[in-house]
Parts: sequence; C-alpha cells; structure tokens
Amino acid sequence: MTRVAIIGAGPSGLAMLRAVEAARADGADVPEVVCYEKQSDWGGQWNYSWRTGLDQYGEPVHSSMYRNLWSNGPKEGLEFADYSFDEHFGRPISSYPPRPVLWDYIAGRVNRAGVRRYIRFETAVRWVDYDEDTRQFSVTTAHLPTGADSTEVFDYVVVASGHFSFPNFPDFEGIETFHGPVMHAHDFRGAEGFAGKDVLVIGSSYSAEDIGSQAYKMGARSVTASYRTAPMGYDWPERFEERPGIERFDGNTVHFVDGSTKDVDVVILCTGYLHKYPFLPEALALDSPNTVYPEGLYRGVVWQDNPQLFYVGAQDQWFTFNMFDAQAWYVRDLILGRAPLPGAADREESMRLWRTRFEAIGGPADEIVFQGEYVKDLIAQTDYPSFDVDGVVEVFLAWKQDKAADIMGYRDYTYKSVMTGTKSVKHHTAWLDELDDSLERYLGSPR
Amino acid sequence: MTRVAIIGAGPSGLAMLRAVEAARADGADVPEVVCYEKQSDWGGQWNYSWRTGLDQYGEPVHSSMYRNLWSNGPKEGLEFADYSFDEHFGRPISSYPPRPVLWDYIAGRVNRAGVRRYIRFETAVRWVDYDEDTRQFSVTTAHLPTGADSTEVFDYVVVASGHFSFPNFPDFEGIETFHGPVMHAHDFRGAEGFAGKDVLVIGSSYSAEDIGSQAYKMGARSVTASYRTAPMGYDWPERFEERPGIERFDGNTVHFVDGSTKDVDVVILCTGYLHKYPFLPEALALDSPNTVYPEGLYRGVVWQDNPQLFYVGAQDQWFTFNMFDAQAWYVRDLILGRAPLPGAADREESMRLWRTRFEAIGGPADEIVFQGEYVKDLIAQTDYPSFDVDGVVEVFLAWKQDKAADIMGYRDYTYKSVMTGTKSVKHHTAWLDELDDSLERYLGSPR
Repeated sequence: MTRVAIIGAGPSGLAMLRAVEAARADGADVPEVVCYEKQSDWGGQWNYSWRTGLDQYGEPVHSSMYRNLWSNGPKEGLEFADYSFDEHFGRPISSYPPRPVLWDYIAGRVNRAGVRRYIRFETAVRWVDYDEDTRQFSVTTAHLPTGADSTEVFDYVVVASGHFSFPNFPDFEGIETFHGPVMHAHDFRGAEGFAGKDVLVIGSSYSAEDIGSQAYKMGARSVTASYRTAPMGYDWPERFEERPGIERFDGNTVHFVDGSTKDVDVVILCTGYLHKYPFLPEALALDSPNTVYPEGLYRGVVWQDNPQLFYVGAQDQWFTFNMFDAQAWYVRDLILGRAPLPGAADREESMRLWRTRFEAIGGPADEIVFQGEYVKDLIAQTDYPSFDVDGVVEVFLAWKQDKAADIMGYRDYTYKSVMTGTKSVKHHTAWLDELDDSLERYLGSPR
Repeated sequence: MTRVAIIGAGPSGLAMLRAVEAARADGADVPEVVCYEKQSDWGGQWNYSWRTGLDQYGEPVHSSMYRNLWSNGPKEGLEFADYSFDEHFGRPISSYPPRPVLWDYIAGRVNRAGVRRYIRFETAVRWVDYDEDTRQFSVTTAHLPTGADSTEVFDYVVVASGHFSFPNFPDFEGIETFHGPVMHAHDFRGAEGFAGKDVLVIGSSYSAEDIGSQAYKMGARSVTASYRTAPMGYDWPERFEERPGIERFDGNTVHFVDGSTKDVDVVILCTGYLHKYPFLPEALALDSPNTVYPEGLYRGVVWQDNPQLFYVGAQDQWFTFNMFDAQAWYVRDLILGRAPLPGAADREESMRLWRTRFEAIGGPADEIVFQGEYVKDLIAQTDYPSFDVDGVVEVFLAWKQDKAADIMGYRDYTYKSVMTGTKSVKHHTAWLDELDDSLERYLGSPR
C-alpha cells in the first residue's frame, strides 16, 4: 500500500490530513498516512507554550506565539472554505480574535474530521533518507517520552513543519555587554513585565510591529523600533519611535547608525526566521529566504528535484489556512494520481513563468494579488470548495489600509466573510483596553 | 585504517584528542580521528555565548554558563597532570578563577598539542547508525553554514557531547500565569538586571546555590531558593532564604507547600539537566539520571551493549578535567589494543562490583572518595601521568568544609596543587566585591 509521511500537525499538516480524509469519506482508495508531531498536541504555532528555548524533552520549542497574541490580519482572510467561523461559533465574532479563539476554530474542524488517530504525537523526525534504488524514503523518528527510535519506509513525504520556529538571530557588536533580557521574538511570551521599561525591538516587519505594539499596550516607558532598510512608517503614538540600524551596543546604551543613542532595558530581536529542516539531507531541504515564491517548488509544493517530496505552507503568507488547504488538496490529488504531474522540464517552465511574474510585482499589495492568483490556480486543479479568492484579496487590501490609518486601533475594525457573507461584529472591548485574551472572556460579556 | 569519531570538542572530546596525539607523539600507529563540534570554537561549556535558546544556525545553544561565572570548586581539583596551571600562567594564581581564565588554561593545553586540525567545527552530528554486518558505525553530519550533509564510516565512536546542555525543565501548576522572566539555569546569562528584584531559584544543587549567590551579589532585593527534598542549609546572608517546594504559581505569587507565599519578579529553574543524545538510536543512547556511576558503562566509559562505543565525561563530576583525561587515555588504549577489553560477562561483573560499592556510600564526601578510587583505577591502566589522587580528594573535602563555613566567601580561600606543590594566592579582590570577571582584570592589578 502506498504510504505517506506528513511531518508536522500544525495548520499545514492538518490540512494534509483533512485533504486525505475528505477523499476517503468520498469513497476513494487513499494511501496510508502517518503524521509525526513533535509536540503533545496539534496546532503547530497555535499550540502555545509558556516554555522558551528547549522543551521538557530538550527539543527546540516550536511555537513563537506569546500569551496575548491576537490575529494581526482579519480572520476573513484565513477562513476555511469547508468550515466557516459561523459554523464553529454559531454566531458572528470579531475580525481579529485572540490566539485561543483561533486555536479553538482550527481544532474544531479537525476534531470533526476525526484525523487525530493518524498523528503520532511527541515523536520527532530525526532523519529522512531517499533510496534511489527503491525510490522510497526511510524516515527515522524518536518517541520523545521513551527515546524509542523507529525507521519506517514511505513513498511520499510531506514537509509541513513550518518556517517560523527557528530564529534568524544575527549578532550585533557589543551585544554581549548588554545586561538585561536579550531575546528573539521566538522566545517572547508577554510584555506585562515591560511596564515602565525602555524596550528596543530590532526589525521592521510583523514581529517588530506587533511586539512593539504589545509593549506599548502593556505600559512600556518607551518603545524604539530599529529598522535596517526602511521604517514601518506608521503613525505611532507618543512613547513609540523608529530609529535606523544599530551600530553597536555599549552596555545598555544602543548606538544607532545615525549617531543617536538610547538607553534600553530590554532587547527583542524581531529579525525573522530560518527555513530549517534538521532532519533533511541537503538535497531535499528547502533553503530559501522567507518569500512568497521560494525557488525549487513546482506550484509552490512539489520539490522539483524529487517530486515524491512535498512542502505545504513553505511560502511567506498573506493567505494562510485556506491556502494550505488548496496546497494540501493538490498534493493529495498528485499522490492519488487524480492530478497529472508534468515532466521536469514542464515544471521548470511553469516555475520560470511564475517567478518572472513574481519578480515584476511592486510591493505588498501586489504580493497579495499574486498569492491570490496562486491560490486560484491550485483550487482549479482539485475539488477543494471554490471560494471568492478575489474577495479575500479585497479584504487583505482593506486591512492594509486600515492598519496604515490606525496602527493601535485596526484590530477593532470589521470585515465581511466571503464564505458566508457574515459581517463580523466588534469585540466588546477595544484591543488597546482588553487585557484578558481568554476564550471565555472573548465569548462572554464585558465586565 | 581504523577510524574514530569523537562527538564534541569540549573538555572531554579534547581529552580524547590529546590522548591520541600523545600516543602519536610517542611514535604509536594511531587511528584516524575526526572530531565533530557543533560550535565554531572548542571548549564546550567553557565556550561562553551570550545567546540563549537556539543559536545562529537554529541549533540548541550548548553552553549553560553565564557571564560572571567563577569556578565553584578549587582549580587544584581539576588541574591536568600533564599541563599545570604554573606552566600555563607562569605564576601562582587564585584557587577559583573566573570563566575566561579557565577557558584560557584549557585552550593553552590543546593549542600546544596541535589537535585543532582534527576538529570539524560548525558540524552537527545528525544520526549515528551501527551496522551489525560490517560492525561499523555510519555517522551522518550537517555542516551548519552550508547545510551540506555527509555520512562517514567509523570503527569507534566516542560520545563526548556532555550532559549539562539540555535542561530538565519540569512544569509547575500556574507557571503560565507568571508574568516575568521564567528561565532555566541553562539560559541564565547574568544577574545584573536583577538588582532590586525578588528572585526565585528553584532547586537545591549547584545551579541554585551559584545563581542565587550571583543574584545576591548583584543586588537582588531578595533571593528565595525552593528545595524539594532538603534545603542547602548554608548560613545564608540577609536577603537570602530557603523555602520548601512549590505548590503553584498564581500570577507572580508563589505558593509553597508549607502554605507560605512570596511575590517574585524572576523565576530561574535550577532543576538540572538531561542526558540527551538526539543523534543516537535508543540502543546506543545513555539514559540515566545525573549520577557518579551511570548504569551500562564498563569502567564508566565502555558501552556494555556495544564496546565500540564509548562515553567520556558522562558521570556526575567531582573530578573533571583530569578524570576526563584518565578516561580518554583508557579509551585510547582500548582502541589501540594496549589495554585488554574483558568479555561481556567480566565487564558485567566489574560493573556489579563498582555499583555495589557505590550504593553503599553515604553522602557527598563518600562520593568524592569513590570517584577518586575510580580515577586511580583508570590511571593504573594507562601511561597517563600518575598523580596524587588522594591529595585531590583531600582538596575537595577541604573545599566542602570551607564552603559550608562561608558560602559567600569560600572563593577567596586558597589550596595547594598536588601536581606542582604550588600554593595558590588570593585574588586581589574578594569574590563578593569583584565585578569585572575578565582575564585582563584577573591577571592585572587591582584598581
């Protein structure tokens, strides 16, 4: 029987399980699927942990999320086409739910699909080998609680381990002389302790924007965001400023390249993440910056040099959950033989065309449109429920404008679902005033 | 040609390299040796890094040391028999040198031995397999800067990757509600930021004792050490107290099992480390608590189930550098065929006898004597320069007494080298007053 290994049970791996299960439910003869998950529960990034660094088994902590994280994009951009927010919550909710609310939504869908039985939890993949003779993979794993190792053979491997877990952690001159907390965004868990402190965030992308805003919300005395290329440029409130790159640290004094200095108490490197797959040999490992169109993946999912290997969710993401679905459905249909796999030269040509198109685009708004086109192309190949992708693009574009207009208030804005037509409702408390991020508080009434 | 892989270039791996090089210098026909080191320099734990969690390549940070660490045992207990402190520094120094001074000493010896060329730096071992047919190991590694993987075949593998790098990181009820820094001792880098804070250290062994003392030294408002079984029981100064185990956290309030509570700002888990070898299959991986006599290792170094595999430095340690030497010299002589390897039954019987002896002993002082006997037994098998092991035991016993008498001042005490007869000199500044831990400051004159 054909065997498929899925590495990771986060949103991408769960999409893959859901895709296979949907075919099984329709009576298809589906392959045997084994999903390896290092953590003790599913959800990937959304499986929050208070832990940092290494976990209870000495494995790198996967999730980069912090206690108080709320979605930083409208939920209308990530809604599943086959499982709506209305279906899960039974009533309209706001557009930017806190972390536990989104986790509940993700879990609700896979609970219903009954795919938990395919997942081997607390099992880390140690090494994957491809045998050119048998044309099969051997996947060596370790069961973390017992240490028991096991090697199994598979015809296909789907890498769904994510690329926001291994910090990109540059060095800065003199940083070893800074005497206070220095952490990567990956290890940030909450800003309550930063009240009254001077906080430095290094970076100008989502982590810097969001962690800086969180520090502001929690009463930091000042937030300084250091950019390398260009400032974020939002209309920041008092106590929040942007400065250029860092020349060096001298104790707790930061020297910026414009000659200015600032004394800070806390340093958070919001310097992004690495594509890192320590369990893959170089020939199978995606090595890419974080980009909407990584090299070497046909239709964004098929490893060009070995089309028995797939990546789901390896792109930089505007679209998320529904894009992972579109990718998973397509990968499933390639494995089932329902979708044809073009030859290497045709795949190469397809990648060249998409890359040319990608390189011609001008900025984030264009990237959103590009990714929408990509999602439409995938959906056209499969029976994944078609949805108004252009409508989702419009939601993202509105979000960008709203955020630019109101960086500390944009999470109070509302949008309309393209899946159900439901217009979201305002959360009972403005984001800036809401200090309880629990599901109970969110679904309950304001105090 | 016989090939030996050494995993790790810390004190244990370097001892192994030094052992082989000493034989080569004497004209012996030695095997080809390859030492794999994940970090970009040698020294293992002594190769300090300001980084915590994951390093620049996304690998777990190896060193658990902090900026201001000083030796917590007298250097007369760890002196190499073939490279004295006098030889390295050219004059007497104090008995408890700071970290950079000890690093300099370790590096001086291996620099002179010319063993750097055998080390493949920035190369992580991913997986080790033993082939029962060929009776050889295949060792798969990744070169971290390039991602290039490689698999090489070896006749022997020496595991010298240490066992103080992967935190033992228990959970505590409510710890996720604590809103401040929570870290394992592994990620502690300095206490300067704790001035005026209430600090909780969880544990009652060396990390708790030393990090608690460091927090006290750096001006913590209070230090509370929580023990599970028994308090450390030192004559702590004002601002430093011991309390029993933790029942739960409720926000920043700690509830102890005796019903008392304490509000704290910082939590440091000094809860020890795991034996973890993610690159080894279960059949080859030592799985042990931290103990002076781990199960399954004949003479503390030979893996009973496969005597082509060795561990160096896998014990809990009173003796350190010179014990690693004694182990490395013995492993080398087994590989060279100079020392006979008894059959499995004889090895089993030897382990049984040592274990019986170990289980009969009563406490730390007995453990020191036991480990001294163990070191003597090893040295008797090889040409490692014999030294007055009983004299070193005496130094350790004096240290324990001095520490018990003066926990905040014991590092100002002096001892006599059994290698050279040199009596150490007092550091120019008392440990409690010395805030500059650099080599320059240490070797220079007081300001």
